[in-house]
Amino acid sequence: MKKYKAEIKITLRENILDVQGKTIEHALFQLDYDMMGNVRIGKYITLDIEAQNDGQAEELVKDACQKLLSNTVIEDFSFTLE
Amino acid sequence: MKKYKAEIKITLRENILDVQGKTIEHALFQLDYDMMGNVRIGKYITLDIEAQNDGQAEELVKDACQKLLSNTVIEDFSFTLE
Repeated sequence: MKKYKAEIKITLRENILDVQGKTIEHALFQLDYDMMGNVRIGKYITLDIEAQNDGQAEELVKDACQKLLSNTVIEDFSFTLE
Repeated sequence: MKKYKAEIKITLRENILDVQGKTIEHALFQLDYDMMGNVRIGKYITLDIEAQNDGQAEELVKDACQKLLSNTVIEDFSFTLE
């Protein structure tokens, strides 16, 4: 068995309103950071995984993202393995 | 002014208990993904920024992370600009 470290990014889909992002945008504006905009807040998940090979590890992380970690109706996910 | 896109990762410090991560680890175990462990949940923030040059953009994002986006007592942050 080989050990991998997965880095997963879960983001709201483009066309979904990001309320948390808008709130932070407003706070940035109040703090005079008005040169920043289009703030989107997602999740950044890291985990360790044991698998027989790269392909299996990838398959397992993809499954976990689809079944548990992301809400595929409103979110997209991407990940890297090392 | 040049336009940049910042990708910010905010993570709980190593020695801080990640309750949300533990909960997901437990859920993964229940779903037979017991080959996964050490789950840590952070934030993944993207934003657009206008600045005169790379150095200024970097400084601004760093400031925003320290003042608003992260809690530097319990969290670390890192970012990339493009």
